[in-house]
Amino acid sequence: MTSSETLRLNRLFSVAVLGATGAVGQRFVKLLSEHPFFQLTCVCASPASVGKRYGDACNWRISSAMPDAIRDLEIVDTTPRDDVQIVFSALGSDIARDVELRWAEKGVSVFSNASAYRMESDVGLIVPEVNPDHFQLVPYQRKRRGFPGSGMIVTNPNCSTTVLALALAPLERQFGLVRVSVVTLQAISGAGYPGMSAMDITGNVVPYIRGEEEKIENETQKILGSLSELGVTPANFLISAQVNRVPVLDGHTESISVELREKPTEAELRKALAEFRAEPQERSLPSAPEHPILLFEGEDRPQPRLDLYRESAMATLVGRIRSCSVLDYKMTLLGHNTVRGAAGGSILNAELAVALGVIG
Amino acid sequence: MTSSETLRLNRLFSVAVLGATGAVGQRFVKLLSEHPFFQLTCVCASPASVGKRYGDACNWRISSAMPDAIRDLEIVDTTPRDDVQIVFSALGSDIARDVELRWAEKGVSVFSNASAYRMESDVGLIVPEVNPDHFQLVPYQRKRRGFPGSGMIVTNPNCSTTVLALALAPLERQFGLVRVSVVTLQAISGAGYPGMSAMDITGNVVPYIRGEEEKIENETQKILGSLSELGVTPANFLISAQVNRVPVLDGHTESISVELREKPTEAELRKALAEFRAEPQERSLPSAPEHPILLFEGEDRPQPRLDLYRESAMATLVGRIRSCSVLDYKMTLLGHNTVRGAAGGSILNAELAVALGVIG
Amino acid sequence: MTSSETLRLNRLFSVAVLGATGAVGQRFVKLLSEHPFFQLTCVCASPASVGKRYGDACNWRISSAMPDAIRDLEIVDTTPRDDVQIVFSALGSDIARDVELRWAEKGVSVFSNASAYRMESDVGLIVPEVNPDHFQLVPYQRKRRGFPGSGMIVTNPNCSTTVLALALAPLERQFGLVRVSVVTLQAISGAGYPGMSAMDITGNVVPYIRGEEEKIENETQKILGSLSELGVTPANFLISAQVNRVPVLDGHTESISVELREKPTEAELRKALAEFRAEPQERSLPSAPEHPILLFEGEDRPQPRLDLYRESAMATLVGRIRSCSVLDYKMTLLGHNTVRGAAGGSILNAELAVALGVIG
Amino acid sequence: MTSSETLRLNRLFSVAVLGATGAVGQRFVKLLSEHPFFQLTCVCASPASVGKRYGDACNWRISSAMPDAIRDLEIVDTTPRDDVQIVFSALGSDIARDVELRWAEKGVSVFSNASAYRMESDVGLIVPEVNPDHFQLVPYQRKRRGFPGSGMIVTNPNCSTTVLALALAPLERQFGLVRVSVVTLQAISGAGYPGMSAMDITGNVVPYIRGEEEKIENETQKILGSLSELGVTPANFLISAQVNRVPVLDGHTESISVELREKPTEAELRKALAEFRAEPQERSLPSAPEHPILLFEGEDRPQPRLDLYRESAMATLVGRIRSCSVLDYKMTLLGHNTVRGAAGGSILNAELAVALGVIG
Repeated sequence: MTSSETLRLNRLFSVAVLGATGAVGQRFVKLLSEHPFFQLTCVCASPASVGKRYGDACNWRISSAMPDAIRDLEIVDTTPRDDVQIVFSALGSDIARDVELRWAEKGVSVFSNASAYRMESDVGLIVPEVNPDHFQLVPYQRKRRGFPGSGMIVTNPNCSTTVLALALAPLERQFGLVRVSVVTLQAISGAGYPGMSAMDITGNVVPYIRGEEEKIENETQKILGSLSELGVTPANFLISAQVNRVPVLDGHTESISVELREKPTEAELRKALAEFRAEPQERSLPSAPEHPILLFEGEDRPQPRLDLYRESAMATLVGRIRSCSVLDYKMTLLGHNTVRGAAGGSILNAELAVALGVIG
Repeated sequence: MTSSETLRLNRLFSVAVLGATGAVGQRFVKLLSEHPFFQLTCVCASPASVGKRYGDACNWRISSAMPDAIRDLEIVDTTPRDDVQIVFSALGSDIARDVELRWAEKGVSVFSNASAYRMESDVGLIVPEVNPDHFQLVPYQRKRRGFPGSGMIVTNPNCSTTVLALALAPLERQFGLVRVSVVTLQAISGAGYPGMSAMDITGNVVPYIRGEEEKIENETQKILGSLSELGVTPANFLISAQVNRVPVLDGHTESISVELREKPTEAELRKALAEFRAEPQERSLPSAPEHPILLFEGEDRPQPRLDLYRESAMATLVGRIRSCSVLDYKMTLLGHNTVRGAAGGSILNAELAVALGVIG
Repeated sequence: MTSSETLRLNRLFSVAVLGATGAVGQRFVKLLSEHPFFQLTCVCASPASVGKRYGDACNWRISSAMPDAIRDLEIVDTTPRDDVQIVFSALGSDIARDVELRWAEKGVSVFSNASAYRMESDVGLIVPEVNPDHFQLVPYQRKRRGFPGSGMIVTNPNCSTTVLALALAPLERQFGLVRVSVVTLQAISGAGYPGMSAMDITGNVVPYIRGEEEKIENETQKILGSLSELGVTPANFLISAQVNRVPVLDGHTESISVELREKPTEAELRKALAEFRAEPQERSLPSAPEHPILLFEGEDRPQPRLDLYRESAMATLVGRIRSCSVLDYKMTLLGHNTVRGAAGGSILNAELAVALGVIG
Repeated sequence: MTSSETLRLNRLFSVAVLGATGAVGQRFVKLLSEHPFFQLTCVCASPASVGKRYGDACNWRISSAMPDAIRDLEIVDTTPRDDVQIVFSALGSDIARDVELRWAEKGVSVFSNASAYRMESDVGLIVPEVNPDHFQLVPYQRKRRGFPGSGMIVTNPNCSTTVLALALAPLERQFGLVRVSVVTLQAISGAGYPGMSAMDITGNVVPYIRGEEEKIENETQKILGSLSELGVTPANFLISAQVNRVPVLDGHTESISVELREKPTEAELRKALAEFRAEPQERSLPSAPEHPILLFEGEDRPQPRLDLYRESAMATLVGRIRSCSVLDYKMTLLGHNTVRGAAGGSILNAELAVALGVIG
């Protein structure tokens, strides 16, 4: 870490959460309440909650108590404010489009978990271990949209995509991806709160989630794509997703198979995954997992119930690596959909932005 | 139906169930208790149960009451008996090998759900809608093993394989399979009783079932294979399976993708699946579903909780047919693992054997 | 059965369901589609569904296929119609108050599962095996409210109350109840559809259901109460309820203990429960269970997964009868909350009303 | 804390766990791996595991990784050893009787979660906040059984009993208990590992756990009983338990009602519960919760999924306090069955024993 970086990471930033009372908003609040340099000073929510104490308005659904420091914050509306430097957005996509833009136009850095801007050509869709270079879109975006100061919108992908992109990154870089087939078994918390009816998912599998397969396919190709003058050129491997909802509370499991341009041995493939490190690790960002990809040797692992909180729920857990008779290799992935796949991923993006000096 | 067939189907057969107190054994008992020409006269189980009333020895796990007629049957051991013409085997594979052989050597027709003999070259591994011609192995088997009279061993595949093979059959026949990728989401009843610990699967996904992936891959190729002098030549498409256990009581879901030699339109593919009929339907066998493949149009179907009992739980339910960017088409399958995938499949095999005159 | 009764039961009645697309509405539709003398000709729902085919508007949640005859019915609004003789109401209580009244004022017999009128002094809150005499309120109600012809409102109790009242009836009649303590473990379908969020109940217990404890306490006392000039005098035993929601799809379990005025032996208590029969059984009403109370001997029964559909899901299943060191006896009850506890109970009320000649 | 206590708590004790690979054994290992003065040096298990590394022999079922320091410990048999001062027993009751005795006869202090000795007249059945005075049985026990040095057997109650006894203690002390009725909704981890079949409990309620009701009734009366010359005289209130197993992973919920000799107002009752503190709190024992009883105000709390880990899973969580029309008050309790109800309770007993100087 250079001394200028150290300086940057010693500053404190006043941050807000948009949509703070929802499922992902609660994860933001929880993670930020313990953050070394992001100070959660502002919780924004819908008109029905404005003016109430956070502790009263929020139906807290996380299995550890609501942080005391947050309980008494008064909920405000989503109008941009001067006393905030960074906002984290857990808004629904429909209203995110307008609200996030207004914050960025005020010169505030917006880190968004919403899908509204993910596929825009001048907006980074970033997994910090995978495509930190996509932060180079920021100056282009500021110029194009006229965002002043530190104004910008940076997005993180859909939960399933994040889990997948982390595992694919070293494979694409070292061996080249040709084809990727992914079948997901997704947790109910991925649908937000209240989200799914218990009548629909108890003891059941639902082989469909609206828009999810397209997101996985398109977002993965953008994240692994390359920067060009006019934005990001999607990576050119083929990818096909099939999604299922299963009665698991947290943690998305993915059964994937990959075809690679170069043909590594299984040992080489394992090594590429196990040794994967990237900027967040090198810069020791506070939310960075030590191992962004954690390999399991047990024949029946990883499992949501047993393994989900390894690496502070910020890694993609990988197991059952073996050769595939249809493509080259197959394996099981697991990641925490509301931590690494949503709020945690967004916060790590912001940490990297600070370290890179993108936030003034 | 010819008049000789009608005659054959008007006979009554005295049948036994081996392993009658287990999870699959109970399904056999339930289905046979309502059968028009198989009369369940004999329930065999392990020494610990021998001599007890079935109603006392059996920890009945099916969600409808134990048939009254069966409750008072006295459990006997697995020694072959003269007063039985057909036995259905729900034995574990380890003891099935010896016990089933002894019954066949006595001239009894054995229909086995055990894996012990499935891959033997002279043993039919039969899904009646898919490979009824494999009953032609019976004379060869009798000769080779010296089984007298109606002695024979006929097996049905693993539960996941049955569900898959039914859906693949019309695709292989009409378009030719090149590659098949299947990811399963399997129900806990597939592990038998007591089977899985509730501590292991409650709110969890377990990405592994011992031996299951090999069974799906190998058995599917044998079922769709062609008869030759020395047995069955496996079909030569590539197939790769990844299996998961999910917290669903009954019903295996499978997310599959297929590459086909000929390239049908989606409409042609749907037609091939929807119109699939085979010998059990033509012969109106009592356990045959009207539609061995039942297509669903809803974007989020089929689902275990809502659809599992369609077609008396004897069909493969198919939904979400759409093109795949990695192979040609992808879709979701669902089937009842202990009905069509085990006891029901075995009984349908026996019905077809009777209709074909294989049982003397 | 007298010949006049037989005549009455040979008539056909044209019936409607109010709120036909909801969870209880679907049960009504399912049960009525197979009914010998109620012909479902009309399905009413909220404005958003009016004009659509039932098959299109209804998100069918029952684990057997939607009856074909109903699929094409066009949904109409809840305005009273002349071509209907009986309506079954699965409306929410808030709108039930007004809508049910309007039907009754048109001379239609309303059988309501809503709570709106349950505690009104001139409205019968009826469990046909328990208080069929409360149909005597009908003439009083008609006079007081000016309902013409067959106009009337008859209610059935809350689901938990029905299960409880059936078991308490023979105890109150034979031994006299002094105190009743009941703790429920209620299924998620009791909350309707979509009802509970999967995030709230998956792997969880929620020790609260709004208004439920008061309903159990008050409704039970009214049902077991006695008729007087001005309505029903509540039974005067003490009753206390504690309710819990558990992650079970269908079936309410209740752990109860009772203090009795007379002190029967355990054998006498069992006999009173096991031999309980009442008007619906004597009159052989089509929806009447053979045993309104079904006793289980197994030490761990009844269980929702194994026993819920005994007696066509129309009985209270009772097990684990034993003495209690705090009150006199304790036992476990189980009943189907949307069948006996809702739609089925309402239909049985209508059948009895027809048999009694209350519907002209 | 006196200075002699401080001295005692600054010593390090070498401790062993008996039955270290089971469900409760794993909780002991987890909790002891972080303990300030108990050093886990020895893990004992059944012959099948002896000689293996703990990391290899143990099927770790806890949702956080196995502590690294323990992974390489070699499993030994249950023979008493000289290098251990304290043993924690997670043995099954049948073998606990003999094994625990042999350790105590060697002068080792045994803290047992097994039921073998709980009801013996000279053995303390201790919840440290409730009956710390029952440690006075130790000298009597040593004398009677001839245990040398620090030899002794101290037991903690059944999981459901611990949760209940904590809540009852201040009520008994301040107001006097007359009658207690308790209905439990118990988690599957209470049955150990593998414990219950997933086929039995998925989506189900089982209204029975062998021996559990008797344990709750008898153990509660012993814990709240008074010391006399010849052991413990059970408390003389009436108590009745009804138990149910529900599909929840961890956390026992209890719906209780109590009749009290004195009649406190609801405010007085709440105050008695909320302000309850006892020796473990006064002595600041490391495993003592700050609030042994934690009161919840929310109308639908406590809930296993949301609240179980409050107070480090070492308190009884209490909510929904309200008057009861059958007894005086009713309320909902929740506690962690394998932490406070098993391993954690046993460790807190040992901490108090050290503080009291009972361990030499």
